[in-house]
Amino acid sequence: MIIVMQPDAGEAEIAAVEAKIRSHGLDVHISRGTERTLIGAIGDERRLDPEMFDPLPGVERSLHILKPYKLVAREWHKASTIVDVRGARIGGSEVQVIAGPCSVETVPQMQAAAAGVASAGARLMRGGAFKPRTSPYTFQGKGVEGLTMLKDAAARYDLPIVTELMDVRMLDTFLEHDVDVIQIGTRNMQNFDLLKEVGKVDVPVILKRGMSATISEWLMAAEYVAAGGNHRIILCERGIRTFETAYRNVLDVTAVAVMKKETHLPVIIDPSHAGGKAWMVPALSCAAVAAGADGLLIEVHPCPAEAWCDADQALSIDEFSTLMTKLRAVAQAVGRSIAPAANVVREEIAVA
Amino acid sequence: MIIVMQPDAGEAEIAAVEAKIRSHGLDVHISRGTERTLIGAIGDERRLDPEMFDPLPGVERSLHILKPYKLVAREWHKASTIVDVRGARIGGSEVQVIAGPCSVETVPQMQAAAAGVASAGARLMRGGAFKPRTSPYTFQGKGVEGLTMLKDAAARYDLPIVTELMDVRMLDTFLEHDVDVIQIGTRNMQNFDLLKEVGKVDVPVILKRGMSATISEWLMAAEYVAAGGNHRIILCERGIRTFETAYRNVLDVTAVAVMKKETHLPVIIDPSHAGGKAWMVPALSCAAVAAGADGLLIEVHPCPAEAWCDADQALSIDEFSTLMTKLRAVAQAVGRSIAPAANVVREEIAVA
Amino acid sequence: MIIVMQPDAGEAEIAAVEAKIRSHGLDVHISRGTERTLIGAIGDERRLDPEMFDPLPGVERSLHILKPYKLVAREWHKASTIVDVRGARIGGSEVQVIAGPCSVETVPQMQAAAAGVASAGARLMRGGAFKPRTSPYTFQGKGVEGLTMLKDAAARYDLPIVTELMDVRMLDTFLEHDVDVIQIGTRNMQNFDLLKEVGKVDVPVILKRGMSATISEWLMAAEYVAAGGNHRIILCERGIRTFETAYRNVLDVTAVAVMKKETHLPVIIDPSHAGGKAWMVPALSCAAVAAGADGLLIEVHPCPAEAWCDADQALSIDEFSTLMTKLRAVAQAVGRSIAPAANVVREEIAVA
Amino acid sequence: MIIVMQPDAGEAEIAAVEAKIRSHGLDVHISRGTERTLIGAIGDERRLDPEMFDPLPGVERSLHILKPYKLVAREWHKASTIVDVRGARIGGSEVQVIAGPCSVETVPQMQAAAAGVASAGARLMRGGAFKPRTSPYTFQGKGVEGLTMLKDAAARYDLPIVTELMDVRMLDTFLEHDVDVIQIGTRNMQNFDLLKEVGKVDVPVILKRGMSATISEWLMAAEYVAAGGNHRIILCERGIRTFETAYRNVLDVTAVAVMKKETHLPVIIDPSHAGGKAWMVPALSCAAVAAGADGLLIEVHPCPAEAWCDADQALSIDEFSTLMTKLRAVAQAVGRSIAPAANVVREEIAVA
Repeated sequence: MIIVMQPDAGEAEIAAVEAKIRSHGLDVHISRGTERTLIGAIGDERRLDPEMFDPLPGVERSLHILKPYKLVAREWHKASTIVDVRGARIGGSEVQVIAGPCSVETVPQMQAAAAGVASAGARLMRGGAFKPRTSPYTFQGKGVEGLTMLKDAAARYDLPIVTELMDVRMLDTFLEHDVDVIQIGTRNMQNFDLLKEVGKVDVPVILKRGMSATISEWLMAAEYVAAGGNHRIILCERGIRTFETAYRNVLDVTAVAVMKKETHLPVIIDPSHAGGKAWMVPALSCAAVAAGADGLLIEVHPCPAEAWCDADQALSIDEFSTLMTKLRAVAQAVGRSIAPAANVVREEIAVA
Repeated sequence: MIIVMQPDAGEAEIAAVEAKIRSHGLDVHISRGTERTLIGAIGDERRLDPEMFDPLPGVERSLHILKPYKLVAREWHKASTIVDVRGARIGGSEVQVIAGPCSVETVPQMQAAAAGVASAGARLMRGGAFKPRTSPYTFQGKGVEGLTMLKDAAARYDLPIVTELMDVRMLDTFLEHDVDVIQIGTRNMQNFDLLKEVGKVDVPVILKRGMSATISEWLMAAEYVAAGGNHRIILCERGIRTFETAYRNVLDVTAVAVMKKETHLPVIIDPSHAGGKAWMVPALSCAAVAAGADGLLIEVHPCPAEAWCDADQALSIDEFSTLMTKLRAVAQAVGRSIAPAANVVREEIAVA
Repeated sequence: MIIVMQPDAGEAEIAAVEAKIRSHGLDVHISRGTERTLIGAIGDERRLDPEMFDPLPGVERSLHILKPYKLVAREWHKASTIVDVRGARIGGSEVQVIAGPCSVETVPQMQAAAAGVASAGARLMRGGAFKPRTSPYTFQGKGVEGLTMLKDAAARYDLPIVTELMDVRMLDTFLEHDVDVIQIGTRNMQNFDLLKEVGKVDVPVILKRGMSATISEWLMAAEYVAAGGNHRIILCERGIRTFETAYRNVLDVTAVAVMKKETHLPVIIDPSHAGGKAWMVPALSCAAVAAGADGLLIEVHPCPAEAWCDADQALSIDEFSTLMTKLRAVAQAVGRSIAPAANVVREEIAVA
Repeated sequence: MIIVMQPDAGEAEIAAVEAKIRSHGLDVHISRGTERTLIGAIGDERRLDPEMFDPLPGVERSLHILKPYKLVAREWHKASTIVDVRGARIGGSEVQVIAGPCSVETVPQMQAAAAGVASAGARLMRGGAFKPRTSPYTFQGKGVEGLTMLKDAAARYDLPIVTELMDVRMLDTFLEHDVDVIQIGTRNMQNFDLLKEVGKVDVPVILKRGMSATISEWLMAAEYVAAGGNHRIILCERGIRTFETAYRNVLDVTAVAVMKKETHLPVIIDPSHAGGKAWMVPALSCAAVAAGADGLLIEVHPCPAEAWCDADQALSIDEFSTLMTKLRAVAQAVGRSIAPAANVVREEIAVA
């Protein structure tokens, strides 16, 4: 950490800063420039915080030199982490596609969805049983019943399931239902009690970026999970909030490149929530894979116009299948691969 | 709700939209313009959502005419709501100042803080026992012990207490400790399970705006609380996230004017978190009162430089006292008032 | 400037950075910490730029310690600058109100506006002859004819005039028409050729903040004007662009406090463009004065509903007059003053 | 346009709105709902503006149904426009890469750059002779001399040149120097006088998106150029400003998909300014091509570390050449192509 003193700071003020640094067990290095005196703290500066020094007399500002994250930082763990979910490896050379409907609705809907996404080559299935909705008056999800419906439908095609946990009191239920990947949604990225609890279990976690979270905040949220002992973390960019109103969010592909440099954890993209419209999903998916994403989380519904939520952003199974073919070509162009289409009896995909 | 059809939409497509509206029990009104056909849904459009219509063939886009919030909307409840907290009325002509340290630290710190804020004229006391921290490695709050320390210190001056609830599992403990006002923090504004639970209790709630929450999302979060039966809601603007990096957040005073028009609930301002520096607090506090805020939530510490968190944004008791004098003048200029300074034995304010 | 080396940077890489610093005439100071080596440049670091060092091998990042602005910085010019516009002093204890219509339309409109704003106590008059419009198909301003209409109307009440310069080729015409204050609009804040030209003339300049300009960029734009020799600069905050769509812009009152600390130049506020609705103007104006603004730039029209542009944000003369009374009380509460209402024959205010 | 009346609006107020619509030559259609009365204007609503109606008594708000742009809209011109620059077709199936240094510095630098970018397969060359710099104290470009240096270097490889015009007074000089494509920079996107002038000439224009410009504002800026008669417009996304500080801007790939739907004009991407660091350029370039961009504008320098500006974002010629190979594969994966590498004598690429 560096403390920049005001131009007129006196020796007593410099000494007070020095004393405060030493009281935390760090060493001190002073550099007297022509316009400012700088005081450097030598040692593990993570014990210090700018707010400790900024209110002291004579201090202009103070700043960290090191990044605040450690367990999730590539600096301390050079090799890329691969999260293995029952054989589907996320973070390796294969780009993994997770697909399924926004919300679990009915048994036939889930069966058709599972057959459809499996046939197109998705290796994991998503579906929301608990839904974070802006309005208290809209469908809030099927709840525990939905977990069973999702698990049963996915099991037929041996697809691990991904579903969102909103309430810390539901964690045991998730474990009982053998949820394969717990998703922490964008609105809960800094729900620290929830992060602490999923840090204690041995289940992979998809941690979505908050809609206005910085790279640093996002990695610190992951650090909460890792600090609890759970290192099977998958980071998911899903569009950030900006001034633009022509589309719901701005997919931040720069974050993919930056995150791959800053952390050893896998990074995936949710193109469906980013744009908010089904017709944008193919372009955003291709961009994500080209930018180096380790996976995609795509909303697919057997009959999008009838979906109970986010109907305008789900792909039909045919659209998804077409997209997968294109994505395989893009993946190959950047030296990656995507699982091939699977052999599924066509009738199973038909909506009941 | 209005559905705008594409320029080349045919009669069958118009009929399909009409049928979907009628299937939800609303009436239909069609307007054929020179460039577009518009279809209006007549009735309670809150049952409809743009995503129901946007994926239909021939639809260009659809939009709500009415606001999505109801219980909290001034349209449906013209008179301003006053939330009475043991005699401190928030939302009336008196501007209420809530003050105290960022975090509860020690018994002497809390006693000095309580004496100080009471003497300056604050009518309620704040203090964090559970702290939402960006890093898992920093002080996380004194927990339940902190609730007792806060309650005891405030009781001496008959100050109702305000403290943040982060974890739904702690609600019963808050009730047992007679927390007077439950604060929902900015990171939990859309923690819907938490909102539902505080909606069921009979304790006033301060609902902080999410750091990138729109006015509409903020009011819908309040609607969650109100829908549960708890109408004693106080909205708190605390600075929004923008592109500017010279200060932590941008205090949105426009939101005060807009919220007073949109909702009957009281609106207060947190100038301490907004700017993030103690020297900004006086200017922001004066601006907030001048803009029409119903209250202020200010961080005050007996010894700011020694505070365990947010040390750079707390006012000292003397600074707070000086500010209160200035605020009284501003309040009077806009036809409001602030409680006078109280008679507190000077020794009690001294830091132990 | 400080250059932070990568953890594995070698001696040759450190030596290369050192050589580059010395080649620009600065001295070098090296600090070897436990995790990083830091290289400090001692001397006038304004000659250096992070981009000079970031591409060098072994460099992690580099950062300025000093602010990039100099002529406009309070650090180098402690006393507040007062810009005197024919007797109206901006930046002193009197808060100056500049008022008038968005655009110059007709002679009677301008006469009524001048009479109205003068009677209410405005000391300067605004009016747009050249209008920056989002659409090429809307009214673009009366042009040179408008300058004459504005000057003539204002002259009757001895009001200095403020009007926007968009095109550098029009500067001579502005000088010929004795424009008292040249306004540089938000879209031209970084039109550097325009800034250079107004830097060469002896006419006060109002420099509006770009709608997403940082404090630093805004001050550097002012530095362009000052570097040309024109130090009579007035900075005007007019709302910034954020994610919020319920109002046009977010008035950034924090910027007032921060700018008064960073620069010696006067800072005024435009509450009309900030919110974009007339009903928001009173609250925002009061907030601005309470926060310490040195002036206000308010849109006033004799008949707002008939205004040729921005009709929804102009105050009527009666509304403006009422607001001025309130503003005088707020100004007094924070130790400032506003000029009293003037004696203007009532008939002159009536719309022709 | 639709005008939404307040719930308690009376017949006289409705009649006033109706009269105002008719006075502009449009027809009126009234729809009385259960909660609001809606008034529709039938005809070319581009003559109307919400601000005309919002200040009228009884009006809640009014909104456009149609987009404000016309000449540049795909709705009115279905076929994609291809801008032909001396044989390099932008907007067709070939993705065009424009490359070269940030600023023109010396003759040898330009010769090496031209040889290098030509050999790698770029079809046009960029270089800045007039530089928009945040600080008045940094290098402002070589000016007219730079235009000659750029033209001469590019001519050897028959590369059309792209360079930025900042000052309307320099347009004639640009024409005299046979500039092939005039670039309007991000800070001048709403410099309306400049847009009007380039609208009058017969030279292709690259119009960069303002750093916080909405899709609509960007297209309206293009409409200014088109309205002047110049339809050879290329739109360039270059990263938008957000809350994120870990990288300079956020490349908005969603904008590519949305723009291709909204307008018939070609859309290219500048990956160099978006991220601000050379190491981000490959990932962003691949993402842009995968998302459907019609071209790329990439900074390449024979010796990046010695570049006079933006040294940290330029690719070396080798890096650029490697990237081009990768981009050809991505282009092919999405059904496009990129010109092959050219045969350039290796010695010409060496830095003099």
